[in-house]
Amino acid sequence: MSRDDVAFDHARAARIGLDEAVFCAGKSANQIAAILEGAGDRDDGLLLTRLNPEKLEALPKALHDAIDYCDLSRTGFFGRLRPVSVTGKVAIVAAGTSDAPVSLEAVRTLRHAGVAADPITDVGVAGLWRLLDRIEEIRRHPIIIAVAGMDAALASVLGGLIPGALIAVPTSVGYGAAEDGRTALNAMLASCAPGITVCNIDNGYGAASAALRVLHSMGITRS
Amino acid sequence: MSRDDVAFDHARAARIGLDEAVFCAGKSANQIAAILEGAGDRDDGLLLTRLNPEKLEALPKALHDAIDYCDLSRTGFFGRLRPVSVTGKVAIVAAGTSDAPVSLEAVRTLRHAGVAADPITDVGVAGLWRLLDRIEEIRRHPIIIAVAGMDAALASVLGGLIPGALIAVPTSVGYGAAEDGRTALNAMLASCAPGITVCNIDNGYGAASAALRVLHSMGITRS
Amino acid sequence: MSRDDVAFDHARAARIGLDEAVFCAGKSANQIAAILEGAGDRDDGLLLTRLNPEKLEALPKALHDAIDYCDLSRTGFFGRLRPVSVTGKVAIVAAGTSDAPVSLEAVRTLRHAGVAADPITDVGVAGLWRLLDRIEEIRRHPIIIAVAGMDAALASVLGGLIPGALIAVPTSVGYGAAEDGRTALNAMLASCAPGITVCNIDNGYGAASAALRVLHSMGITRS
Amino acid sequence: MSRDDVAFDHARAARIGLDEAVFCAGKSANQIAAILEGAGDRDDGLLLTRLNPEKLEALPKALHDAIDYCDLSRTGFFGRLRPVSVTGKVAIVAAGTSDAPVSLEAVRTLRHAGVAADPITDVGVAGLWRLLDRIEEIRRHPIIIAVAGMDAALASVLGGLIPGALIAVPTSVGYGAAEDGRTALNAMLASCAPGITVCNIDNGYGAASAALRVLHSMGITRS
Amino acid sequence: MSRDDVAFDHARAARIGLDEAVFCAGKSANQIAAILEGAGDRDDGLLLTRLNPEKLEALPKALHDAIDYCDLSRTGFFGRLRPVSVTGKVAIVAAGTSDAPVSLEAVRTLRHAGVAADPITDVGVAGLWRLLDRIEEIRRHPIIIAVAGMDAALASVLGGLIPGALIAVPTSVGYGAAEDGRTALNAMLASCAPGITVCNIDNGYGAASAALRVLHSMGITRS
Amino acid sequence: MSRDDVAFDHARAARIGLDEAVFCAGKSANQIAAILEGAGDRDDGLLLTRLNPEKLEALPKALHDAIDYCDLSRTGFFGRLRPVSVTGKVAIVAAGTSDAPVSLEAVRTLRHAGVAADPITDVGVAGLWRLLDRIEEIRRHPIIIAVAGMDAALASVLGGLIPGALIAVPTSVGYGAAEDGRTALNAMLASCAPGITVCNIDNGYGAASAALRVLHSMGITRS
Amino acid sequence: MSRDDVAFDHARAARIGLDEAVFCAGKSANQIAAILEGAGDRDDGLLLTRLNPEKLEALPKALHDAIDYCDLSRTGFFGRLRPVSVTGKVAIVAAGTSDAPVSLEAVRTLRHAGVAADPITDVGVAGLWRLLDRIEEIRRHPIIIAVAGMDAALASVLGGLIPGALIAVPTSVGYGAAEDGRTALNAMLASCAPGITVCNIDNGYGAASAALRVLHSMGITRS
Amino acid sequence: MSRDDVAFDHARAARIGLDEAVFCAGKSANQIAAILEGAGDRDDGLLLTRLNPEKLEALPKALHDAIDYCDLSRTGFFGRLRPVSVTGKVAIVAAGTSDAPVSLEAVRTLRHAGVAADPITDVGVAGLWRLLDRIEEIRRHPIIIAVAGMDAALASVLGGLIPGALIAVPTSVGYGAAEDGRTALNAMLASCAPGITVCNIDNGYGAASAALRVLHSMGITRS
Repeated sequence: MSRDDVAFDHARAARIGLDEAVFCAGKSANQIAAILEGAGDRDDGLLLTRLNPEKLEALPKALHDAIDYCDLSRTGFFGRLRPVSVTGKVAIVAAGTSDAPVSLEAVRTLRHAGVAADPITDVGVAGLWRLLDRIEEIRRHPIIIAVAGMDAALASVLGGLIPGALIAVPTSVGYGAAEDGRTALNAMLASCAPGITVCNIDNGYGAASAALRVLHSMGITRS
Repeated sequence: MSRDDVAFDHARAARIGLDEAVFCAGKSANQIAAILEGAGDRDDGLLLTRLNPEKLEALPKALHDAIDYCDLSRTGFFGRLRPVSVTGKVAIVAAGTSDAPVSLEAVRTLRHAGVAADPITDVGVAGLWRLLDRIEEIRRHPIIIAVAGMDAALASVLGGLIPGALIAVPTSVGYGAAEDGRTALNAMLASCAPGITVCNIDNGYGAASAALRVLHSMGITRS
Repeated sequence: MSRDDVAFDHARAARIGLDEAVFCAGKSANQIAAILEGAGDRDDGLLLTRLNPEKLEALPKALHDAIDYCDLSRTGFFGRLRPVSVTGKVAIVAAGTSDAPVSLEAVRTLRHAGVAADPITDVGVAGLWRLLDRIEEIRRHPIIIAVAGMDAALASVLGGLIPGALIAVPTSVGYGAAEDGRTALNAMLASCAPGITVCNIDNGYGAASAALRVLHSMGITRS
Repeated sequence: MSRDDVAFDHARAARIGLDEAVFCAGKSANQIAAILEGAGDRDDGLLLTRLNPEKLEALPKALHDAIDYCDLSRTGFFGRLRPVSVTGKVAIVAAGTSDAPVSLEAVRTLRHAGVAADPITDVGVAGLWRLLDRIEEIRRHPIIIAVAGMDAALASVLGGLIPGALIAVPTSVGYGAAEDGRTALNAMLASCAPGITVCNIDNGYGAASAALRVLHSMGITRS
Repeated sequence: MSRDDVAFDHARAARIGLDEAVFCAGKSANQIAAILEGAGDRDDGLLLTRLNPEKLEALPKALHDAIDYCDLSRTGFFGRLRPVSVTGKVAIVAAGTSDAPVSLEAVRTLRHAGVAADPITDVGVAGLWRLLDRIEEIRRHPIIIAVAGMDAALASVLGGLIPGALIAVPTSVGYGAAEDGRTALNAMLASCAPGITVCNIDNGYGAASAALRVLHSMGITRS
Repeated sequence: MSRDDVAFDHARAARIGLDEAVFCAGKSANQIAAILEGAGDRDDGLLLTRLNPEKLEALPKALHDAIDYCDLSRTGFFGRLRPVSVTGKVAIVAAGTSDAPVSLEAVRTLRHAGVAADPITDVGVAGLWRLLDRIEEIRRHPIIIAVAGMDAALASVLGGLIPGALIAVPTSVGYGAAEDGRTALNAMLASCAPGITVCNIDNGYGAASAALRVLHSMGITRS
Repeated sequence: MSRDDVAFDHARAARIGLDEAVFCAGKSANQIAAILEGAGDRDDGLLLTRLNPEKLEALPKALHDAIDYCDLSRTGFFGRLRPVSVTGKVAIVAAGTSDAPVSLEAVRTLRHAGVAADPITDVGVAGLWRLLDRIEEIRRHPIIIAVAGMDAALASVLGGLIPGALIAVPTSVGYGAAEDGRTALNAMLASCAPGITVCNIDNGYGAASAALRVLHSMGITRS
Repeated sequence: MSRDDVAFDHARAARIGLDEAVFCAGKSANQIAAILEGAGDRDDGLLLTRLNPEKLEALPKALHDAIDYCDLSRTGFFGRLRPVSVTGKVAIVAAGTSDAPVSLEAVRTLRHAGVAADPITDVGVAGLWRLLDRIEEIRRHPIIIAVAGMDAALASVLGGLIPGALIAVPTSVGYGAAEDGRTALNAMLASCAPGITVCNIDNGYGAASAALRVLHSMGITRS
């Protein structure tokens, strides 16, 4: 596959202010390499998501070395990284240790867009006081991303405590009745707290993109 | 259908200490009448569940008049009602107004067995302080029945706050992703709080029966 | 049921800036009447959702007459209506005529909070030019609510054309493989366009609440 | 297993004008070898689908060398390849890079039957202009195969723009709410555009066979 | 609702050669009346699907009288009916008596477009000879619509016997494991016979539209 | 684990005339070895099902050597094999090559019980004449086991052609809408042909056991 | 609809020894009347299943009066009833009172074929001794039909106690996790007892037909 | 990841009397090591669940050697083990050999809390007498944990025979219609025996925690 076979949608960034990321899960190393080579001439860098270590290793060395990789979130920054221009606007609140890959994917996606997010972890509602101890800190952010699996009760409790935009991401943590994240997804959608919006299971990238859209609504765009 | 066609399991009560109730949903008025007539000679009365008003009206007048009916929970007490012999042991905690039919079915089932339960309602986690205001009162009971639909987050929050037996009942309240109670059911099963046990959707009768089993374990049986 | 049995969460409005609405689907006319009577002394009015005409008729006349009812969206405004204080911020884009009940529920929920939304209807993608003719008008709003059933392709097409917050609401329009709205829900969640967030099926109220949260993030709150 | 154990349906080709292909996924290398040996005496070659590289390697060398293999689509041509006799009739339109294995399986199945298809790739609706730029080229074909995963919105948009036969193939690309292709499948079935027909998930072979059936309807059969 | 509120897509007919039909299931009588009044000035008539008798009766008398209604298929022809211009091209093969509403919807949709289809009924495979007796008659048509519920085995058997375009429509006939037509749908999609394409459950309208697309591919369009 | 930890139900064979087989899929090699050692003293041998080659290799050599293993069906005969005492009573009819593991499991289970079954393979309905050519041979058996995956149309066609006991086994062959065999299972359950009974997916052992039960009903039991 | 539109499969009875019954659920009263009129000249009568009282009342009086109707099972005998020729061969064992409609459909289907079945009711395993008290009586029959809903544990317990043909019918009794009979269906299919075969949910007719097939295998056919 | 990144909820043990266990399935070896190091200074030890051997081997040697590991249940005791203080209160009843990993997880969780449970295995209802032989022994325990997969009939039979608290755990044993344990889960929830409560699939830890809660209700807490 040559780079000519890939029609990357660079115009979309101009149109909607969101870079297209390279979702690597369904692509071969050859396909990813072709996309990266095609992107080499652009000013801004490229975000790679769902890039597993095996595929990273299979890339040509020059490409491999140009990637700033995080193995917990399986994300990579390729090329020039935009400086941080937005801080204090987005909090990423996660229920447990096992949710880290997803919340970190959101952190990294926002960082790639120049937004520094504030992570707040291990505040699942089974230990309610951990959450209540930090609720004022959370409330200071106009945008909250809530990451939780299993029963996803964190999203409902937050929904009753904060006034700002609340973007919930279910995770596939758990087994049996957790149904690979569908239970968390449905519980967030059917939450008793009003105005929670939801992303796909494990979709930290999507939650970060939704946060960027709200930043656009707030008039905050990248410099 | 004559009363001879119905093999009611009276021996089960002696064996396991739980009366068989008459689940009316799948039975015709004729079948229910046959069962009630057969039960007329017994000392203790009979509990009827899922008895809708139409079926109640279709019963012969003598049977109809012998039933103490509650239309919100669709339960009926037929015949002699056992006096209350147990108090202060079971709290029934419900998330919202719409959960009342289920929590009331549990209250009535326990009452039929001589147990007075303490109902605590409208303490859903979207308004967290309503729950926290009453948590000490809840904790004083060795057995808690938690009734909630939609995201069922109430069960998880309770699970982190009380040490006693926690019996969760999902309700079919809600729409769409609430999936007729399956989301609440799965969220309770996959709860991040340990040791929650779960009954079938809308099964207030089952939760009360489970509470009676725990009372048996505690050495508390009806006189 | 007396009004004392209902613990309405008035404090939540102060805490998160969203009024609790009365979800009528799971409540009896008696329960609704108790809530409305309890709310009579408050300054601001009350929003009722999923109120079918039969239940409306069953309310006491004084309550009935105090409700401004819309039968297409099955919503009611009870008591004093807040004046419009926000305009031009929220567009509600709907795919077809059958989606009107849901988009109208969103319009009315926003109106109750003092926000006048701009509805744009019948722009499903099967007739793509209808949508493209109005895309600039849509783009002028910082917040878009997209309402669509069946394949829900409208959300994905919008996602590639607008930069602002995009809140998608699947509807239960359709039959067979539409799966009562689950296909639209899943298609919105799995959209190829980034940053779309999703509400429960037919949840126009929830989408409007999410839009209010983004308005809070933008620093726009009711006077 | 000897070749006598396999009852290959050669008569079907004569009856319906479609060769039976060898679906290798559920067969051992031994079973595949037995089929190929039995087919050695026939005039026309044989198409193999879902043949993974490991199984290919496990075949006897003579058989292995007689196979023209494509690893992206996992298809093989065994024996004599029919010359191309039909051009310009079938376009294969794919949403993204990850859909290539499925669209290529369709291309190869048609090629095996003597039909040269025109592939048009990376025209997913999230970047709508990429599709609109090529819509006239697509419209010139009487038969369109649309390949898309996740939300499958491409099929609906195409359905509103082209008059000819439209055969949609959902792919299993995506995760979570994509449900291994079921969301794309259902979205195509419930499309708001009329007259779209659908094949099984990832079934490029089936879509090509359906295209061949339409060619039969058009009076175009292989020489 | 006035007629101005409805943006009917008349341009689509010109673009893709398929009239938009009025899907009445999700619309009120008022909405349908608005559409019909708006269509009154057009040259060609309008097809109504899923129009139940109650809604038909609720239409204004002038509109009601202008509709040629079929209660078995719940379809109506409004206004001028195009003359038949195509015959002998489409056979509609149905498994059982209970499938008649769906096959008749297909017959009527084709008739509205000027195509006379040939219905062949009660040829389910449990009585295989009924089908084999008529197979030559079926094979003479270049386009076959196969209508079947429950196990949908008819589609697979036909798939092995006819060379032309085969459009399968699952029906919701049956109970239990028939899963409201999903079993028939899945069985058709997973058929062992190649090149079968499938429409949504009970979608006779869609199958007819797909047949019209194949007629377009064949160069047969309405005069 | 010692052999004392395993309570094998030898009495069941005497009670119902069916040996308990060792289902190896959920057991470790140690557990299987403990069972086999415990069975060493019995007169008759033991049937092992779902025994994969890795587990077979992990058994102690003496046990390994005492097993007559078939890798296609993953079954083993341990110890003395009962002689054949019943012939011509059971036909096992399979749709395709990929169904062989399941039909062979049934053949081997019957053989272990002393019954020689007649396999008839590759008679799927997509090539209907292959089946019709052998239908008289099939009809001569009082008991038919039908093995098929995907659409499972074979069972329905057989159901209309044979009068005897018809035991259908769905297989997990196929992909996508085949749903790991659930589509075949449901299609068999919802068959339009009367009196078909169904076993679990891929359960050749269960089908053979059911055939043995019918042989018991016929008065044919092992000597 | 005239009687000429209905192609009833009378030949099937001759071929497989099972009469085609009229499944009334998906048919209009007109369609049923046409079938009955067409059947009037035949020697043997006709079985009607799923005939609800409203449809029965809507039949012409002459047809109505010729039907021996049972409202609990919703079955009817039309015309001449074959005398009983087989006794003591089939037991129908049902778990509870609510299963009566299904077990009675089986009883009536067998009766229509000249077989008198022995019903044994209210022997669900929650009161195990009721079942054990009658197990010897059950074991005397070579064919057992087990009817149960909810957990369907009756089938598994019977499977370990009887040697003959065991045909299990799940019923849709129950709610919530009973999933309209799918739980009973799956539990019967996945039973720990060997050789149980299963029919569709609530399919008493199918179970009786399967029993007739086993009687055919036993050489017992109607005179 | 340093130990400071992990907010372990030590306070929960004091609040509800249940130690938080380390669920290892979703955590990396590094994350587990950080938790264990943080726990080193505590008085009581720590329970690890779902710890597979590969992850155990990847831990630092000092941590590895401090773990008392059981490979069948994949549980580990880290650090000081509390002495046994409760005996004769909890029986763990398992249907088959394949259920051992789950029942053993329950045994080990209870042991970690100082409770010695009595395991009773291989008493599945397909061999009913095995269960009845031990029923008096089972009944002597006030708390029963029932572990079963597939049809889970064991729970229903026990429910009719014992009066005490009955905690049912479905297991993922089986295939096809066993649906990875969902069938057992649903059968337990829909049981015909009253008062059974249910845990998540394969959740031996949760069942043990529920038993500890009942012990709390009984006034039995760890010294």
